[in-house]
Amino acid sequence: MDTGTAYGLPEPSYRAELTEVGRGTPCGEFLRRYWHPIGLAADAAGVPRPVRVLGEDLILFRDGKGRAGLVYPRCCHRGTTLYYGRIEAEGIRCCYHGWLFDVEGRCLDQPCEPDGGRHRGSARQPWYPVQERYGLIFAYLGPPEKKPVLPRYDILETRGPGEFIDADDTSIGSGGPALVPCNWLQHFENIMDPFHVPILHGSFSGVQFTAQMGLMPKVDFATTPRGTMTVQDRILPDGRIHHRITEAVFPTLRVVPNPRVAGYGTCEQIGWVLPIDDGNFRIYVAGRTTEKGTLGKGRSKYNGKWWWDLTEAEHQRFPGDYEAQVGQGRISFHSEEHLASSDKGIAMIRRLLKRQIDAVREGRDPIGVGFDPANDLVKLDAGNFLMDAPPAAASGD
Amino acid sequence: MDTGTAYGLPEPSYRAELTEVGRGTPCGEFLRRYWHPIGLAADAAGVPRPVRVLGEDLILFRDGKGRAGLVYPRCCHRGTTLYYGRIEAEGIRCCYHGWLFDVEGRCLDQPCEPDGGRHRGSARQPWYPVQERYGLIFAYLGPPEKKPVLPRYDILETRGPGEFIDADDTSIGSGGPALVPCNWLQHFENIMDPFHVPILHGSFSGVQFTAQMGLMPKVDFATTPRGTMTVQDRILPDGRIHHRITEAVFPTLRVVPNPRVAGYGTCEQIGWVLPIDDGNFRIYVAGRTTEKGTLGKGRSKYNGKWWWDLTEAEHQRFPGDYEAQVGQGRISFHSEEHLASSDKGIAMIRRLLKRQIDAVREGRDPIGVGFDPANDLVKLDAGNFLMDAPPAAASGD
Amino acid sequence: MDTGTAYGLPEPSYRAELTEVGRGTPCGEFLRRYWHPIGLAADAAGVPRPVRVLGEDLILFRDGKGRAGLVYPRCCHRGTTLYYGRIEAEGIRCCYHGWLFDVEGRCLDQPCEPDGGRHRGSARQPWYPVQERYGLIFAYLGPPEKKPVLPRYDILETRGPGEFIDADDTSIGSGGPALVPCNWLQHFENIMDPFHVPILHGSFSGVQFTAQMGLMPKVDFATTPRGTMTVQDRILPDGRIHHRITEAVFPTLRVVPNPRVAGYGTCEQIGWVLPIDDGNFRIYVAGRTTEKGTLGKGRSKYNGKWWWDLTEAEHQRFPGDYEAQVGQGRISFHSEEHLASSDKGIAMIRRLLKRQIDAVREGRDPIGVGFDPANDLVKLDAGNFLMDAPPAAASGD
Repeated sequence: MDTGTAYGLPEPSYRAELTEVGRGTPCGEFLRRYWHPIGLAADAAGVPRPVRVLGEDLILFRDGKGRAGLVYPRCCHRGTTLYYGRIEAEGIRCCYHGWLFDVEGRCLDQPCEPDGGRHRGSARQPWYPVQERYGLIFAYLGPPEKKPVLPRYDILETRGPGEFIDADDTSIGSGGPALVPCNWLQHFENIMDPFHVPILHGSFSGVQFTAQMGLMPKVDFATTPRGTMTVQDRILPDGRIHHRITEAVFPTLRVVPNPRVAGYGTCEQIGWVLPIDDGNFRIYVAGRTTEKGTLGKGRSKYNGKWWWDLTEAEHQRFPGDYEAQVGQGRISFHSEEHLASSDKGIAMIRRLLKRQIDAVREGRDPIGVGFDPANDLVKLDAGNFLMDAPPAAASGD
Repeated sequence: MDTGTAYGLPEPSYRAELTEVGRGTPCGEFLRRYWHPIGLAADAAGVPRPVRVLGEDLILFRDGKGRAGLVYPRCCHRGTTLYYGRIEAEGIRCCYHGWLFDVEGRCLDQPCEPDGGRHRGSARQPWYPVQERYGLIFAYLGPPEKKPVLPRYDILETRGPGEFIDADDTSIGSGGPALVPCNWLQHFENIMDPFHVPILHGSFSGVQFTAQMGLMPKVDFATTPRGTMTVQDRILPDGRIHHRITEAVFPTLRVVPNPRVAGYGTCEQIGWVLPIDDGNFRIYVAGRTTEKGTLGKGRSKYNGKWWWDLTEAEHQRFPGDYEAQVGQGRISFHSEEHLASSDKGIAMIRRLLKRQIDAVREGRDPIGVGFDPANDLVKLDAGNFLMDAPPAAASGD
Repeated sequence: MDTGTAYGLPEPSYRAELTEVGRGTPCGEFLRRYWHPIGLAADAAGVPRPVRVLGEDLILFRDGKGRAGLVYPRCCHRGTTLYYGRIEAEGIRCCYHGWLFDVEGRCLDQPCEPDGGRHRGSARQPWYPVQERYGLIFAYLGPPEKKPVLPRYDILETRGPGEFIDADDTSIGSGGPALVPCNWLQHFENIMDPFHVPILHGSFSGVQFTAQMGLMPKVDFATTPRGTMTVQDRILPDGRIHHRITEAVFPTLRVVPNPRVAGYGTCEQIGWVLPIDDGNFRIYVAGRTTEKGTLGKGRSKYNGKWWWDLTEAEHQRFPGDYEAQVGQGRISFHSEEHLASSDKGIAMIRRLLKRQIDAVREGRDPIGVGFDPANDLVKLDAGNFLMDAPPAAASGD
């Protein structure tokens, strides 16, 4: 008799507490304890711009005095969207009855009311605080009393000659287009999965990065004061060791050195995986560079083509991270997984994530959150490093 | 600490009892006590035409003897849609097994049955009564024992030299296309909101109507025996007064004089806001004219263009009623509103609507419903009028 | 007062137990006791092919040794779809971490694990058994202990000179395109409805088949050891009788002789109505022919055109089976039907279907299921036959 058929499959399910990002959900409240990038600095401008973050629709703008604002889209008067609002020196004005709000939602004018609104002080457009850094606009969507400092990162603060910080919103590292239609965790946990590289990016796609990334590495996984990391050693043909460290910094930062290994040294870029909602994410990147607009120059090709130029048959034949992760479904069914020893990093990052979510639920602060403006610098270890062969037992464990 | 952020926003909600139009809902049953236009006279023709009204899908046709019919789309025999039916002299015949129904749903033939169906008298295709007037087809979707007379309106019955009644189905007054994807009440209550005119149709769009409509009016709001009205006085540069009356006649009639004020006198048109379903409406208009097909000649332009020729950037820059009302969402969240003194008309029309809905629920007849065919004429007050300046205290209140 | 209006219509409903096909539903479990065609033999090839059957998404492929495989799409390791898998000699390999599965789901390799996965034997990709016959791939999606023999049919096993079996996946007999967006039963029960032919395929479409099919037949309905049948007699102008037998063989087989009556004899084709899900079906056909690719040569035309060349106005004017059945809705509302004497066949097939569904629910085997490989031949009666006029009382009943 046949065994193992799909007839007996139980209903699949996923771990909602690790994946869903809406307000009031366990993971959503955890994510809301951090600042998230929600646009390039240039996205806040004189025309209202709709953004979607953690399942919330919001309007981003920049008033005439240069202040960025992020507000709830429905005007607190009659609910018309501020997408049709007009940006003025002091704020954004609703098209319907002209209520004017500043970047913190205060109502400055109600032109259909006597005296511009004698009670306008009691109206408040819901808003969120924003800060600008590294060419990005960061927003804090959490409880006001828990607003942390916006961290600085040593690998972006310390720059070489001619280097500056550039920002990018094309989801470098997603393997596909800027908007990726699956849950953010499918991408984020992938940082802790170095073993897929020789398969997905080697055996399947041909040498997608460099030949040496196709070597099956010796890997250690570890937690850090800010998240998790992999330490990967690949023995090169000349006996030296390619020592590679990738970091998953909570809540969503990918600190992944260039897989093309153009040179050795500390990681040059940070990517923030922004959960748009439960079933979509995008990646904002800030990185050191000497030439504007070149952060994405190492973007992957497939069969010699850009992702967006592939036919469906080519996508099927040359899958990358986008196909593998979106191919897990909108939210992957964890109930059907069979984790193996090479999935140790996946299990580790999920455990750590679970602990942070529990911490928030229990009233504690999650990992990496700080409130001291004088102590806002985060030191990172990620990078590609070249080491001499150890004197003995190099590949032992 | 930040105050007023969107983090604390409660779940929004809307007043379903004022907005939802389906059979069995409070507002749906209220609306079903009136006749509603469901098409132009020419829409009832020799080819079955699907229409959607108050959330119900129906088929409109005209039999070979000229009688308009409105029937449930699923044939009462086996459920095939009568959209594929054939119009014959006596009615509509289903394509599948040929059952023939007259305009009142009676089954006249069952050709696959012996003798054309010995029991055909017991089959009845569900139908609704219709009447034609003013170039429109009106249908009554309510309880048969409550069917009122179809009203006549003085402003359409009394015509000047060369005038006749023309009809239009392009949603004149919507500010956009024929089908508007939001709840009907968002448009209907806007009739009682004269204050948005100088903002939305003046400050935002430039002078959209005429310069004098950009003046902030002195406004009185009132209930009438048939609904609500606004009485707007604008003091013209020469000291005379533009006295403007708009009426919201229940359940859905907009009696709004030309905002371009081409001339003074009684309102020339009536618009019926037809709820297609909870999230869509359209407007049928009948009006006095001397030239066929010109009712919509005063349609609004934006930035010198028709609505359908605007780019998305232009829609955002030059919003009109369509953008403001659709921008409130499918059904606007009333829980988030902050009504002010200039919203007195909005509050008034909602209160009156609520009372009518309660009346129907309690077994009474709602406003404006009559059963006496000899007493079917409704007198309206709406119009643009020019008045001399009052001797004193003209702009006082 | 108006009677019979749609105002009083109760909420419609359908018989879920006869129509819904998902795992665990009454009808779904009945259907899962049989083999169903899920593709042409050529569809199982070197590129993974998504198929949808009885509401289940699956991946069809053929390994390098020629064995067809049908597997659950989500890799049992981390859930990535095997749509992006690579076909190898021994099976299909997932793109993400390279797990390799054979056609029965056994895991043959886990390349990221030590020694190719020491515990790979405990991983099993969910799969379904398939068999190939008549140019089609048949799958069994039911409980393994109930897997029946795949039947042979005499009309396909017994071939004339030069005849062979060809297969087709274009839904011959649907009246429209390959994918039909309504419930499978709407098509299957139509086999027992000969009376619609003179109406839908005669009076409405003009002579769609042949003139003689437009004659209203004398019909007997009967159950058979394998399903139901119609026996239709049409008296031809020369007094002879066109004796036509159509069969609905459970669970989904249409054994319907050519309605164009190109010749007389046993039916040449079998069509399997494959429920894709509750709201979609397609038809696979296998039949005797002497020329490859000509099974569909008798496909219906409308107004002289192929279905896919019709304008919407022509679809409305010249409806066929597709329009009539899709026009009943996604799943027709049985609560609104009025069956008449000419619907005797419809009532009969539903009763027989209900009994089989009940049988499965009560632990018995449904009609036509056999477990003896030596006894796998099914004899069919369907065909167009020409008979001499009976000596007396020819058209009596």
